Amino acid sequence: MKIASFKINNQTGFGVVVDGAVVPASAEFAQTYPTVRDVLTADALDQLAADCAQSHQKIGLDKVQLLPPITNPGRIFCVGINYAKRYPVANEEGEFPFMPPPENIILFAKLDGTLVGHGQPLEIPAGEAAETFDYEGEITVVIGKGGRHIAAENAFEHIAGYTIMNDGSVRGWQKHSVHAGKNFANSGGCGPWMVTADEIDDPFAMTLQTRLNGELVQNTVASEMVFGIPELIAYISHTIDLRPGDLIATGSPEGSGGSRKPQRFLRAGDDLAISVSGIGTLKNRVG
Amino acid sequence: MKIASFKINNQTGFGVVVDGAVVPASAEFAQTYPTVRDVLTADALDQLAADCAQSHQKIGLDKVQLLPPITNPGRIFCVGINYAKRYPVANEEGEFPFMPPPENIILFAKLDGTLVGHGQPLEIPAGEAAETFDYEGEITVVIGKGGRHIAAENAFEHIAGYTIMNDGSVRGWQKHSVHAGKNFANSGGCGPWMVTADEIDDPFAMTLQTRLNGELVQNTVASEMVFGIPELIAYISHTIDLRPGDLIATGSPEGSGGSRKPQRFLRAGDDLAISVSGIGTLKNRVG
Repeated sequence: MKIASFKINNQTGFGVVVDGAVVPASAEFAQTYPTVRDVLTADALDQLAADCAQSHQKIGLDKVQLLPPITNPGRIFCVGINYAKRYPVANEEGEFPFMPPPENIILFAKLDGTLVGHGQPLEIPAGEAAETFDYEGEITVVIGKGGRHIAAENAFEHIAGYTIMNDGSVRGWQKHSVHAGKNFANSGGCGPWMVTADEIDDPFAMTLQTRLNGELVQNTVASEMVFGIPELIAYISHTIDLRPGDLIATGSPEGSGGSRKPQRFLRAGDDLAISVSGIGTLKNRVG
Repeated sequence: MKIASFKINNQTGFGVVVDGAVVPASAEFAQTYPTVRDVLTADALDQLAADCAQSHQKIGLDKVQLLPPITNPGRIFCVGINYAKRYPVANEEGEFPFMPPPENIILFAKLDGTLVGHGQPLEIPAGEAAETFDYEGEITVVIGKGGRHIAAENAFEHIAGYTIMNDGSVRGWQKHSVHAGKNFANSGGCGPWMVTADEIDDPFAMTLQTRLNGELVQNTVASEMVFGIPELIAYISHTIDLRPGDLIATGSPEGSGGSRKPQRFLRAGDDLAISVSGIGTLKNRVG
């Protein structure tokens, strides 16, 4: 099941995506569960499916403004350097060897206000920050069942589904602090919807491809992560309880603009498309 | 005016603190503005004062469980290394000289679930993380009027008030990532209340003192910050809109347990008391 959050006529809603249209949750259902996060908190995905199955309403996806599927995530945990990466500067032989992988999981957070929905413009940061504005396509976990000290072998029980994130980054400001570079307003995206976990046969086989103006710039598979999704959930839940609706952006592979030779940062009018197998494609235009 | 959030009989509420008691907002007021953040969003501090002035109800502070004054902060921005600090290792002369101040503001975030209220126990992290559990007393800004690209000279117009934070930190995990070390569940505290900005004559003259089991371990004044409150607001609001109820923890001076010689980390039973002039004292026991 694909679940989208959307805005239409200045009202926000959510529903199930079927054949290029969204079947909105009924008014009664939305009164009980006002947001997708509330649905997840109440463990009510089956009720949502039943509610939408009875509906005769359908709104074409071209008629709504899609929002990030979790419009009010409790927390957005992001993972840094979670795929093999090459050094940005050539060595004496002119090679760009791989960096040693990090010994530990590297976390940072994105805060509310940093992500736009599918189809919405990415905001170009003001001033010189615009000169190092970059993309990072990421497979993203949506937590269903909360928990603390979750063992890696039980991690998949806590996943409600998956979505796609563009972890928009301002490289110049990342040098001040990871937080600053990763938390410019509307600099990243999330969507187009979440897909429930039952639709992903093998999460380790999920492929991720990022295209910039049609050109393939990132291309990986989840099994290439340095720390897999179960390890990420175990690590994070050792520090704090995970809650329904929390997001975990699992890190981005090689090929962001800052890692390319020569570097190629985002410019107004660029089209960014991040595809994950089994989910779909998150598209955003810059500016 | 001092504004506290609290829990009593499993109900949460907020109100004005007067003479060791809290005067709760009326049911009608709380229906319109369910949280302090809603009061700030509606710019309704004067209405809150008027509402509480008409009340005949008073609850002794010893009868309620205090919560962080903003129970649901939108975002908690934290500033790193914002006071002069000495190197943790002595040089050849056996001295601990001051480190050069950072060239830029250093930010990170604390997420929902990391802070407890005044009087609540600090949760000792599980496993070896307990061995490097540390405190950081911090003067903390509560945003009133939101805004983007706020000029430093206008910053104080956006401050609703001030509170105190213990930016609880797990030093061992901070080496993995700043985020991990700063985001253990219930590892920090906030409170005991917020004080509205009109009660602080000179924000640069606010003093901060941290006492561990009665011993003075941190002692500074806001004017010693490397980047003052106006610069912090200007910098953060360059990256993202600030919103009513956002918190900015302005950084901690020398004297945390990890910076002492020898190091002295928190242990079960430790009493932590962080005092800021004009606000009060945030007290928490460890474990």
